[in-house]
Amino acid sequence: MQYPDSISKLIDSYMKLPGIGEKTATRLAFFTIDMDKSDVMTFAKSLTDAKTKLHYCSICGNITEDDPCVICTDTSRDQSKVLVVEQAKDVMSMDRMDDYHGLFHVLHGVLSPMEGVGPDDLNIASLLRRLQDNDKVQEVIVATNATPEGEATATYLARLIKPAGIKVTRLAHGLSVGSDIEYADQMTLMKAVEGRTEL
Amino acid sequence: MQYPDSISKLIDSYMKLPGIGEKTATRLAFFTIDMDKSDVMTFAKSLTDAKTKLHYCSICGNITEDDPCVICTDTSRDQSKVLVVEQAKDVMSMDRMDDYHGLFHVLHGVLSPMEGVGPDDLNIASLLRRLQDNDKVQEVIVATNATPEGEATATYLARLIKPAGIKVTRLAHGLSVGSDIEYADQMTLMKAVEGRTEL
Repeated sequence: MQYPDSISKLIDSYMKLPGIGEKTATRLAFFTIDMDKSDVMTFAKSLTDAKTKLHYCSICGNITEDDPCVICTDTSRDQSKVLVVEQAKDVMSMDRMDDYHGLFHVLHGVLSPMEGVGPDDLNIASLLRRLQDNDKVQEVIVATNATPEGEATATYLARLIKPAGIKVTRLAHGLSVGSDIEYADQMTLMKAVEGRTEL
Repeated sequence: MQYPDSISKLIDSYMKLPGIGEKTATRLAFFTIDMDKSDVMTFAKSLTDAKTKLHYCSICGNITEDDPCVICTDTSRDQSKVLVVEQAKDVMSMDRMDDYHGLFHVLHGVLSPMEGVGPDDLNIASLLRRLQDNDKVQEVIVATNATPEGEATATYLARLIKPAGIKVTRLAHGLSVGSDIEYADQMTLMKAVEGRTEL
């Protein structure tokens, strides 16, 4: 016996999502059947909407419905700073912090020779063009992740941008707030010692 | 800053699924944006299809696109046995075992006075009608889960069906195949001792 076609297809679709195997997909499919019809229809519509209405902002590469995005068109923001992140979702994490009110730029990845990702595969050319066209930018804050690829990308960007007389900074690395030294890894401790500040 | 409307709605939809919180929902939503357009459209369609094309079989209560379902219409199956399960997905688990070729009946739950689930809330009346109308059935195998509610439901069904001269059996409880006695709970060990067989 096989599941009815509608269920099999739904299970297959759920299995395309990251971290969802056959068992979870089956559980989700059966849960879907018992959901409110309106919720399921909203779900289906939001899926198609997400795929049809969303684009990358032509200026910063962030995900947006309107081009340019709300951040790029917000003149109340500090136009002298551009914070560079790997992924569009990092923009939200950074913006939620409420301490940074500058502009953003999304790379859509990091340099990774191992995986064949070079500078041309990232949103770097548009960043350089943006810095050339706009002489208000005084600082580029590189907020790539603290991975070897993230570090390499940061160094690469610094080498490209610094000659234009623009300050390039990198987010501080060290112990997370509230974390235990006991459980911190060696690299984090090393970074924390390197970046120590005077009291 | 807020996420574009299309993303927020998609995150909300993902959060309606069981075991998915805001962080996972956000990750899934951003993953969806990067998925193949055709995959997303198939996903959306399978959601609406699952909700519109699927019904419960009027005979056994299993989930099906056609009524009666493929199991109820399959005359090659052993018509003398009916295996009673709690949920539609249990039918598939049981059928996959390839050792049982009889019919099924789905209760859509178990008796639970604590949660206000009585006999009328379950698919029991149709089971009794089925047994009355069809004198081929000689055995009802109750395969509800080994929970207090499952046990109570099994006892309740046995009391209703036995007077009609139909054999009522219950799945064996004991140690799972491949499991360690060391990690088995007290109730399972008790059932294993109770149900011991001679070698």
